Amino acid sequence: MKRDKISSNVIRRLPRYLRKLDDLAYHGIDRISSGQLGKQMGLTPSQIRQDFSCFGEFGQQGYGYNVEKLREEISQIMGLDSGFKAILVGVGNMGRALINNFNFNNYGFNLCAGFDASEDVVGKTINETEIFHIDDMEKFISENEVTAAILCVPRRHADNVANSLATFGIKAIWNFTNTELTLEDDTVIIEDIHFSDSLMYLSYRITETLPDEDDT
Amino acid sequence: MKRDKISSNVIRRLPRYLRKLDDLAYHGIDRISSGQLGKQMGLTPSQIRQDFSCFGEFGQQGYGYNVEKLREEISQIMGLDSGFKAILVGVGNMGRALINNFNFNNYGFNLCAGFDASEDVVGKTINETEIFHIDDMEKFISENEVTAAILCVPRRHADNVANSLATFGIKAIWNFTNTELTLEDDTVIIEDIHFSDSLMYLSYRITETLPDEDDT
Repeated sequence: MKRDKISSNVIRRLPRYLRKLDDLAYHGIDRISSGQLGKQMGLTPSQIRQDFSCFGEFGQQGYGYNVEKLREEISQIMGLDSGFKAILVGVGNMGRALINNFNFNNYGFNLCAGFDASEDVVGKTINETEIFHIDDMEKFISENEVTAAILCVPRRHADNVANSLATFGIKAIWNFTNTELTLEDDTVIIEDIHFSDSLMYLSYRITETLPDEDDT
Repeated sequence: MKRDKISSNVIRRLPRYLRKLDDLAYHGIDRISSGQLGKQMGLTPSQIRQDFSCFGEFGQQGYGYNVEKLREEISQIMGLDSGFKAILVGVGNMGRALINNFNFNNYGFNLCAGFDASEDVVGKTINETEIFHIDDMEKFISENEVTAAILCVPRRHADNVANSLATFGIKAIWNFTNTELTLEDDTVIIEDIHFSDSLMYLSYRITETLPDEDDT
């Protein structure tokens, strides 16, 4: 597989392609042209061809793309078959929502355990995931070669816990704390879930539909 | 205020600017040039000038941008002082996490009530938000002129509940169901929180750091 440096904008678009391709496969469509795909996704055919050309050639001139093959290639590029070992830290409402409802296996991760400081939850098993005391985290990470942590602790503990995780050898953090983490180790990969950005965008789109105050 | 049609890419960047400006204000910086701002955000000065020029002139040649004024303008453009009335539907773990930890007022919304079908939660008050039975939703929406709904119901109920909300007069949905909503009313504004896209991107970035299999 060709593995040139791909821009993060292209990579950010790949999950959207993947969702679209899943949808096409579900509806029994096994081949699609860049023109049709573009129309359905609000992109130009040349944009699509350019995106896909970054990591090799999937399409055949005049025949379009093979949906199943394209899905597999994108999955492989994204590392969705990697099964990176992950732990979830902070089993409050957000943590529970993820453990109960989110299928980590589909997206490249194997959720091995949860960690919390509260006796209410330590020792329990939630949706087949065992919850351990946060004091046992260092040992667990090293013994199980854990790669990633899903950070769901309260905001005030975010930096402390994140820095501990980095010290214990965690390589990547999926950050749900609604704060920008400040890490001493800048090699740790951080991916933030910014609820606020999304809600601000919604606010903007509602605002846009309102009659302009100047138009009186 | 100038209100031309602004591209959604620019709008998507505004929350990031806002976070940066909050950070600058917090550190007592009251003026910044497009060059400095670009350096701190990984953008070119001309990109920044172009983004801000879409909605009028904030900067003064040679003096840079007034941090506080820029924050206010962006807030106003995004409608963050609107206080749009919102309800949250589905008070499970995800719903509770939002009610407990998320400050809707900061982002343009006033959370008025929660709705659920379960007797375990109906009648309770969580973080000053009253939870009502889902059967009372239609009446509440019309009596209180609710604009937006935060959708946190289980995936299998997502389309049904979303279509009911549209019928009851809801104009915008913040969608946490991890599914693409299919609405009969296509005027409803939908903003999805795609956990999966974010996790796939994290998977990619970890994959990128691994030694290439071909390099043996």
